[in-house]
Amino acid sequence: MTSKPKIFNDPIYGLLEIPNGILFKLIEHPFFQRLRRIKQLGLSDYVYPGALHTRFHHALGALHIMGKAVNVLRSKGNEISEAEEEAVKIAILLHDIGHGPFSHALENILLPMHHEDISLKIMERLNIEFDHKLDLAISIFQGKYKKQFLYQLISGQLDMDRMDYLKRDSFFTGVHEGVIGHERIIQMLDVVNDKLVLEEKAIYSIEKFLIARRLMYWQVYLHKTVLAAEQLLIRVIKTAKEVFKKDPNLPCSKTLRYFFERSTEEDFNKPNETIEHFVKLDDFDIISGIKEWVNHDDAILAFLSRSILNRKLFRIELGSKPIEDKKVEKIRKKLGLVFDNQRIMDSLIFTGVETNTPYSTTTDEIKILLKDGSVKPLSEISDYGLEDKIITKYYLCYPKNIS
Amino acid sequence: MTSKPKIFNDPIYGLLEIPNGILFKLIEHPFFQRLRRIKQLGLSDYVYPGALHTRFHHALGALHIMGKAVNVLRSKGNEISEAEEEAVKIAILLHDIGHGPFSHALENILLPMHHEDISLKIMERLNIEFDHKLDLAISIFQGKYKKQFLYQLISGQLDMDRMDYLKRDSFFTGVHEGVIGHERIIQMLDVVNDKLVLEEKAIYSIEKFLIARRLMYWQVYLHKTVLAAEQLLIRVIKTAKEVFKKDPNLPCSKTLRYFFERSTEEDFNKPNETIEHFVKLDDFDIISGIKEWVNHDDAILAFLSRSILNRKLFRIELGSKPIEDKKVEKIRKKLGLVFDNQRIMDSLIFTGVETNTPYSTTTDEIKILLKDGSVKPLSEISDYGLEDKIITKYYLCYPKNIS
Amino acid sequence: MTSKPKIFNDPIYGLLEIPNGILFKLIEHPFFQRLRRIKQLGLSDYVYPGALHTRFHHALGALHIMGKAVNVLRSKGNEISEAEEEAVKIAILLHDIGHGPFSHALENILLPMHHEDISLKIMERLNIEFDHKLDLAISIFQGKYKKQFLYQLISGQLDMDRMDYLKRDSFFTGVHEGVIGHERIIQMLDVVNDKLVLEEKAIYSIEKFLIARRLMYWQVYLHKTVLAAEQLLIRVIKTAKEVFKKDPNLPCSKTLRYFFERSTEEDFNKPNETIEHFVKLDDFDIISGIKEWVNHDDAILAFLSRSILNRKLFRIELGSKPIEDKKVEKIRKKLGLVFDNQRIMDSLIFTGVETNTPYSTTTDEIKILLKDGSVKPLSEISDYGLEDKIITKYYLCYPKNIS
Amino acid sequence: MTSKPKIFNDPIYGLLEIPNGILFKLIEHPFFQRLRRIKQLGLSDYVYPGALHTRFHHALGALHIMGKAVNVLRSKGNEISEAEEEAVKIAILLHDIGHGPFSHALENILLPMHHEDISLKIMERLNIEFDHKLDLAISIFQGKYKKQFLYQLISGQLDMDRMDYLKRDSFFTGVHEGVIGHERIIQMLDVVNDKLVLEEKAIYSIEKFLIARRLMYWQVYLHKTVLAAEQLLIRVIKTAKEVFKKDPNLPCSKTLRYFFERSTEEDFNKPNETIEHFVKLDDFDIISGIKEWVNHDDAILAFLSRSILNRKLFRIELGSKPIEDKKVEKIRKKLGLVFDNQRIMDSLIFTGVETNTPYSTTTDEIKILLKDGSVKPLSEISDYGLEDKIITKYYLCYPKNIS
Repeated sequence: MTSKPKIFNDPIYGLLEIPNGILFKLIEHPFFQRLRRIKQLGLSDYVYPGALHTRFHHALGALHIMGKAVNVLRSKGNEISEAEEEAVKIAILLHDIGHGPFSHALENILLPMHHEDISLKIMERLNIEFDHKLDLAISIFQGKYKKQFLYQLISGQLDMDRMDYLKRDSFFTGVHEGVIGHERIIQMLDVVNDKLVLEEKAIYSIEKFLIARRLMYWQVYLHKTVLAAEQLLIRVIKTAKEVFKKDPNLPCSKTLRYFFERSTEEDFNKPNETIEHFVKLDDFDIISGIKEWVNHDDAILAFLSRSILNRKLFRIELGSKPIEDKKVEKIRKKLGLVFDNQRIMDSLIFTGVETNTPYSTTTDEIKILLKDGSVKPLSEISDYGLEDKIITKYYLCYPKNIS
Repeated sequence: MTSKPKIFNDPIYGLLEIPNGILFKLIEHPFFQRLRRIKQLGLSDYVYPGALHTRFHHALGALHIMGKAVNVLRSKGNEISEAEEEAVKIAILLHDIGHGPFSHALENILLPMHHEDISLKIMERLNIEFDHKLDLAISIFQGKYKKQFLYQLISGQLDMDRMDYLKRDSFFTGVHEGVIGHERIIQMLDVVNDKLVLEEKAIYSIEKFLIARRLMYWQVYLHKTVLAAEQLLIRVIKTAKEVFKKDPNLPCSKTLRYFFERSTEEDFNKPNETIEHFVKLDDFDIISGIKEWVNHDDAILAFLSRSILNRKLFRIELGSKPIEDKKVEKIRKKLGLVFDNQRIMDSLIFTGVETNTPYSTTTDEIKILLKDGSVKPLSEISDYGLEDKIITKYYLCYPKNIS
Repeated sequence: MTSKPKIFNDPIYGLLEIPNGILFKLIEHPFFQRLRRIKQLGLSDYVYPGALHTRFHHALGALHIMGKAVNVLRSKGNEISEAEEEAVKIAILLHDIGHGPFSHALENILLPMHHEDISLKIMERLNIEFDHKLDLAISIFQGKYKKQFLYQLISGQLDMDRMDYLKRDSFFTGVHEGVIGHERIIQMLDVVNDKLVLEEKAIYSIEKFLIARRLMYWQVYLHKTVLAAEQLLIRVIKTAKEVFKKDPNLPCSKTLRYFFERSTEEDFNKPNETIEHFVKLDDFDIISGIKEWVNHDDAILAFLSRSILNRKLFRIELGSKPIEDKKVEKIRKKLGLVFDNQRIMDSLIFTGVETNTPYSTTTDEIKILLKDGSVKPLSEISDYGLEDKIITKYYLCYPKNIS
Repeated sequence: MTSKPKIFNDPIYGLLEIPNGILFKLIEHPFFQRLRRIKQLGLSDYVYPGALHTRFHHALGALHIMGKAVNVLRSKGNEISEAEEEAVKIAILLHDIGHGPFSHALENILLPMHHEDISLKIMERLNIEFDHKLDLAISIFQGKYKKQFLYQLISGQLDMDRMDYLKRDSFFTGVHEGVIGHERIIQMLDVVNDKLVLEEKAIYSIEKFLIARRLMYWQVYLHKTVLAAEQLLIRVIKTAKEVFKKDPNLPCSKTLRYFFERSTEEDFNKPNETIEHFVKLDDFDIISGIKEWVNHDDAILAFLSRSILNRKLFRIELGSKPIEDKKVEKIRKKLGLVFDNQRIMDSLIFTGVETNTPYSTTTDEIKILLKDGSVKPLSEISDYGLEDKIITKYYLCYPKNIS
């Protein structure tokens, strides 16, 4: 008999049981504990004050429902060995370990790498430390393992990542619109020809899941005020980095300094060293930096830092058409009355674009297992219009009380 | 018609409406925004990963239910003027504004003052900024205003502070034991002879409330692992301060430095200056300091910092009797094999005591309004044993893997 | 000061406060108490065992949120007098008082009248009893009152009826897909040119609301097993009525007897008498009848009664095309091996059709109040495809273990 | 591989999976389906309108958490064979199958037998029908099986029956006070010396559980208005039975007639026949009877029937001392002005007593497994006063508008 599982409390699923083996050891590792200091939703708590949950909690939740999915698939006769179960659980536990401060909000800003690539690097580091016990997990994570459906549980239209984050983000924001019936969807999972499929009677649940995802995008992930806050955050960091180049005494943590000193992929050409520093970086480096900069001599840095710290967010205008130059020029003129040079202008007015593809019928479409045993793509069956529409929103941000 | 209220999402109560006047202006003030960076439950998230909610959210919640309480009391014929309503709402909104980093966990450690006294000082500061519009709120907060029941709504056995924190802490920890029927209790509030009373039929709800409070104490607020984590945190800060005395270059934020340089009430004899710095201090100063100290030359500081950062918590033994000296001596001996001097010993082994009085029949007892119109103390009516019992727990902490 | 409100517990909204006046008197009236004996969702509890909630509870819930809506509209400067408030509340409280046994499931079967017409008749009866205090409520209910937006709160795309039933049905069935953010939608209501509109920022919530409604249709209201159960129920009643014509001693309640003796509108040409009997009819008349019929000499009646009572539901086949005659013929042949005459055939095999229009852009479309003050129909603004699609499903039912 | 489990939706636990074997067959059996027509909480919905849940749903819920308990116990090394698992699940599924109309409210009134004895009789009937596959289940249910801890899971301080009903009753009434942390308690179960024990760290959860149970008693199960309603129900039935003796044409269902014709144990001396009729009796026989009696010639029967049907409940006075005769006499005098004979008096005024023992330290006390491996009774460890106190409440009921 193995030793007793470890228990975590989760307001969402109740008690989470973690087998007391390598999974628990990975959770205890400082690399994973770092996720306690990285908020899942960046600055969304500036709009939804409850949204302070972390990548740590999300990873535990995704691990929990992965256990459910494995049980369901096995009960339907799909073979998953003990080793595969452990591996797919390790892979989901660590899938986000490469996230940096404020998750997506600052992705690519401090280190020119996608978080999944960093996750892989960190997993490889851990693999060495754990005597290659992560070999299979890494293979699954990379989509190289022969059983593709295991990879789809990690990364796909129906992966446990999404299943948990929609549920969790909905819970902590209090946005009921995002509530999904994850239990029912998982219950309806099956595998045909090494691909995840959903039993036909899950069709309404899965439509609802797609809709919830889409609505969470506009109501939370791309909420205009959140967007304004996160764009501001990016400007603070970029500005601080510029200032740092001229003033190496700019107060900041040792770790942040390392990333301020480097920019290009070239600069980060020692992967081990990069990872060594990256695993020390979290939300606290950013906020504690900002707290020091609010009175800095550089007026822009100070202004931006105070704006973010005290939640004096910029005005944001959002629309479905590109922002016209003359509109920007008009704002620029008014700003010119307050601030007096080009660099200031560029730091305080910014435009950008966000896109979202609610559903794609061309890549990785959800497959439905009909009662007659055939498998069809969801878009052929659903009454609900699942077209390949890309939704694009353009935005313009600038300080309040000026326009 | 007044302008539209401001809306906040709360996963607990749903939408919170804030009148768009002085209350909203106070919320937008940097002093109040600071509460976004102070967790309600210190390090409890080391046991309950969802417990990341802040004093900011708690204050908004308490404000919300204060509105309910005012409505209920008025509907029963108790006069509360518009001005009194606004004042009691300001008072509850700001009641915790004097909390420092990690709330209770570090209270009195960096500044030898109780958080309520600091709240008062900050309210007085704000009062000047807001042209004495907080006069009445401050009078109520201090218990000096003629209508005592307004004070009891802020601070008393049935205040809106407790009502919200029990609900909120229960929600975010996922400890269902703490769920209280706040709606029903508030519905049953009334005032007799200027004192808050509860209608008789709320008696079971209020018993439940007392029990929930008691259980939340042992299961969350004084959970042994939380206790171990918070004692460790205190040691880190105390050790850092000692090290700082010898090494003024110890990396830390400007604000933390201010508090490291001072200790006694004497040192803090310029109230305005103290408050000026205090309102800049939050959880981030502490954690970012700890992150810098993990590799410090001082072995103790580094050891403690790593312990807290990576959640390598100390073992804790908890009992109802004082820890015996020989027990401590035994541990000390074993530790002596690993570390080699007195100072190290004292930093790594520590004992302490926590007490909790579930209910007191002598001070501020809950009053019940019987159907015949008479008012009696709860303890005379309740079947549930409400005695004046003080519960005391003694603890001993030391590093793991040593005993 | 008015007397204290009456309180009802609701697991959904918490405490419901009912003003202690005519509203409470109406609730206490036997006509309204009858709704305690009429399940909201007919036989849906055969699929969702928790779905036992009644029209009584739904009406109280709708009344509760009507209060919220009135407050929101007033706070935005729309005038609603005390008398109008009471009237619109009476109207929503009584909007479903004309429902008969099993709500929609048996509508038109025992009495050839739509439930809203019966509601009106009963309201008129009550109006006499209450000295014409329902005049305004009836006028609003009929859409005759000058302020059209009050009527829309009772019956329209955004009425409080739907708002409550989606929430309530979702809660008691446990189908999370139906959860709607009713609070947010109500918060965003306003009136422009005497029409209800929604503020622009509610757009995602309202899309979600439409989707939830659509999914609840297919997952609950038109769930195939529920459909099979309710079609069976209809057959039992129709068969019992036929048998009754030949055998007036068929055991049944006095009230049911009255409706078995009459069929056409002609038969029901004494409205007062009809209502007199209708207000005594509820789920219990039906089920207690069925319980007596399980051993009746008429084989069909007994078979159908046992089927429904013991939940031996018929097989149902559901598709988007009309059932082919040859398919029915095939089943009929097999059944012929078991039962032996035409009448039996017709009672045990039945086909039908259900349609649902998720959204209509032609009648009563939801109006959105844009930030620039203009009002546009939702379909012009939403990214979500809101076309005028009618969804039609054809079904075939027959006993199990035969095909 | 076994066939796919059957799924039920439960708003409390989510999806309930029922293995597709004997358990599902038992659920489909008419004897079990009857539980759909027996409300769990008698007439509590007259106070808590949501409390319409049935014994059917409760039994499924208890079955669900029994599965959890079996898994936990096994994971701690306690051997439970497949056969034992199935048997203990059958036993919990059927533990309440002997409940009659309105559960406890009418227990012993129509049939002089305790519901557990009837459950046993029905299980024995089913055992024959299922070829003795219930042998082990019956042995466990009776406490005769060698593994006593299995019996304790069915009936004991920590059984799955209580665990589910507290949760369920709290959910459907909306009384948050009854919420228990069932997950945590189950997680902490273990077996020592063939007795269920709880790990020490569950101590606060179990205290909370006891308190929740106690409060649910006073707030729901023995709520004074519920008590008044149920006493009224008892009077209706007793009166109807008396009237029936004189007038055998009293309208009532065939099944109810059977029980009206019999009273003593003697009368019910054919167990098989008794059970045959009992399994046809449910809430519908009672309410449909009452509906017929509201206009009966017997004034008392009609008065009581109308009172219950239209929820014109009697006034109830509740106290901790026996009702004084002179009090009753006073009421009787006033009633005498309205009604005119002795029989009427006795039917409209009634006194009674209810007792509740929150916890007993003498029988079947909860056992705690301490960290040192020893086992102690809860009362020795808990700080919370767990004395052997019997709480007694006396009541007096009589029609309203008379005193």
